[in-house]
Amino acid sequence: MEQTYAIGIDIGGTNTDIGLVRSDGTCIARTNLPTQSYSDIEAYADDVADVIRKILSDNGINEIVGVGIGAPNGNYYTGTIDYAPNLPFKGRIFLQELIRSRMDTKVVLTNDANAAAFGEKIYGGARGLTDFILITLGTGVGSGIFVNGQMVYGHDGFAGELGHAILYPDGRACSCGRSGCLEAYASARGIVQTYKELCQENGIAAPADITCRDITQRADSGDELAIDTWRRTALCLGIALSNAVTFSSPQAIFLMGGPVKAGHWLLDPLKQYFDEYLLTIFKGKADIRRSELPENDAAVLGAAALVYE
Amino acid sequence: MEQTYAIGIDIGGTNTDIGLVRSDGTCIARTNLPTQSYSDIEAYADDVADVIRKILSDNGINEIVGVGIGAPNGNYYTGTIDYAPNLPFKGRIFLQELIRSRMDTKVVLTNDANAAAFGEKIYGGARGLTDFILITLGTGVGSGIFVNGQMVYGHDGFAGELGHAILYPDGRACSCGRSGCLEAYASARGIVQTYKELCQENGIAAPADITCRDITQRADSGDELAIDTWRRTALCLGIALSNAVTFSSPQAIFLMGGPVKAGHWLLDPLKQYFDEYLLTIFKGKADIRRSELPENDAAVLGAAALVYE
Repeated sequence: MEQTYAIGIDIGGTNTDIGLVRSDGTCIARTNLPTQSYSDIEAYADDVADVIRKILSDNGINEIVGVGIGAPNGNYYTGTIDYAPNLPFKGRIFLQELIRSRMDTKVVLTNDANAAAFGEKIYGGARGLTDFILITLGTGVGSGIFVNGQMVYGHDGFAGELGHAILYPDGRACSCGRSGCLEAYASARGIVQTYKELCQENGIAAPADITCRDITQRADSGDELAIDTWRRTALCLGIALSNAVTFSSPQAIFLMGGPVKAGHWLLDPLKQYFDEYLLTIFKGKADIRRSELPENDAAVLGAAALVYE
Repeated sequence: MEQTYAIGIDIGGTNTDIGLVRSDGTCIARTNLPTQSYSDIEAYADDVADVIRKILSDNGINEIVGVGIGAPNGNYYTGTIDYAPNLPFKGRIFLQELIRSRMDTKVVLTNDANAAAFGEKIYGGARGLTDFILITLGTGVGSGIFVNGQMVYGHDGFAGELGHAILYPDGRACSCGRSGCLEAYASARGIVQTYKELCQENGIAAPADITCRDITQRADSGDELAIDTWRRTALCLGIALSNAVTFSSPQAIFLMGGPVKAGHWLLDPLKQYFDEYLLTIFKGKADIRRSELPENDAAVLGAAALVYE
């Protein structure tokens, strides 16, 4: 089958990654711009368009299917980035239109977790699946949901916020201002908090700057509190994902992001709790899997995948 | 606009209601068969087909769009009723095919809560909405979910079991064998249990056979425990529905069923808790509404609506 090409743009608070992606899921070329150094959105759009033209020219590509953009607080319906706290551009930014006016090609914009789900569907483990959920574990907990082969955007473009489903109504404070959300337990920060709380309960001092990676290393070294941290994280995720299944009965749930590198410490108890908490009619029907996208390119691939909708 | 006609069949454990429904949502004629008196599914299908033919002939209707069937444990994909505990027919029943072979028209089958959501979309308050959720409160708590204008069936046909989303992981035992599901609190049985528990805590004797209707009457008479029962029910529903919004960001959530007759005792605190627990980006965007289908015909209307998919 003849290959086609797409540009994927992943906008982060620090860097904007821009990649040229072949339809077999290979990221052929990649470069980045320092997002934080821009305060003027027009100058930013100019430079993004210049970088795209240079990548295409350097690689001898004359035709692309389009440009996909994944951004925090990106809204598919409006093509805007709305009040993203970690970006230098304030208010509502009409980025889709700003890029389209400079490139004369299809431009699609959505939020980063939705883009990741598109990446999994077009290039990864969700190829051929109509109903699946992708969960991104990182600073926050994001999600992208496919139902009937279509992304669930909701009527306003903001659907798929499973990180803010409330798990324990009187639980731990969440960054969203409420209590007991999945994100308060299963984000990198939540996982670190669980470990620190367990250390405190056991009269042990935990380093202030400890990370999820450190907790995995400690689990590998036999630290029972680290092992228990991953088990407790798995319990929260297992309940939340079994609840998600009652909603859309997906064929698979994919996990992506740093904490997934805990590997069996997280995944073994997760699969066990997920099965334990699943409603009987759903047991054995939905798999929990790791994302099949290469970690470093996942965000750019997700953004590029948007143009194949 | 010219009117069209459909047959709606609502299969319950006691009766099978069969109605002729005009496309403006009027149920023109209705009759029923005693479900429990049939053990032979072929004889049942024969009688259902005979009743349909008689209704059509009595009302001078020669052409219908089709026959829709709502049934407990009905599966849209397979057209079967699978192991419904309250029906006399055991195992997996291929009812869609049994009716189609006798009627030579389009026959659609799904579960009763999904059918109710179709009814709301075709004849009720969800006309013109693409993203909404319908919740049925009764013996259990059922749900039907629309996303992008389509019913969410999931890959196996069993999606939309919001009554079995776990609200309190270590909570009250549910009829499904797990703990803390919404249904354990917001079904008629759960509401009665809440009232009895509150009475017991306060050293008051509650009648063993008290019903939701009684609890509403007691609230009307100033019984603080009855008022608190509806408030607690509203809290559980409010959290569960705010969680549902994080999934699909619907324009509206409709409520149907006996407990909704508690009226302001349930709905006022429900709207308050729903708003309180909603993630900020969703506040003010989703309404909680009562179903606009006439209560007595709702199930038959829902079944008939299936043929307009």
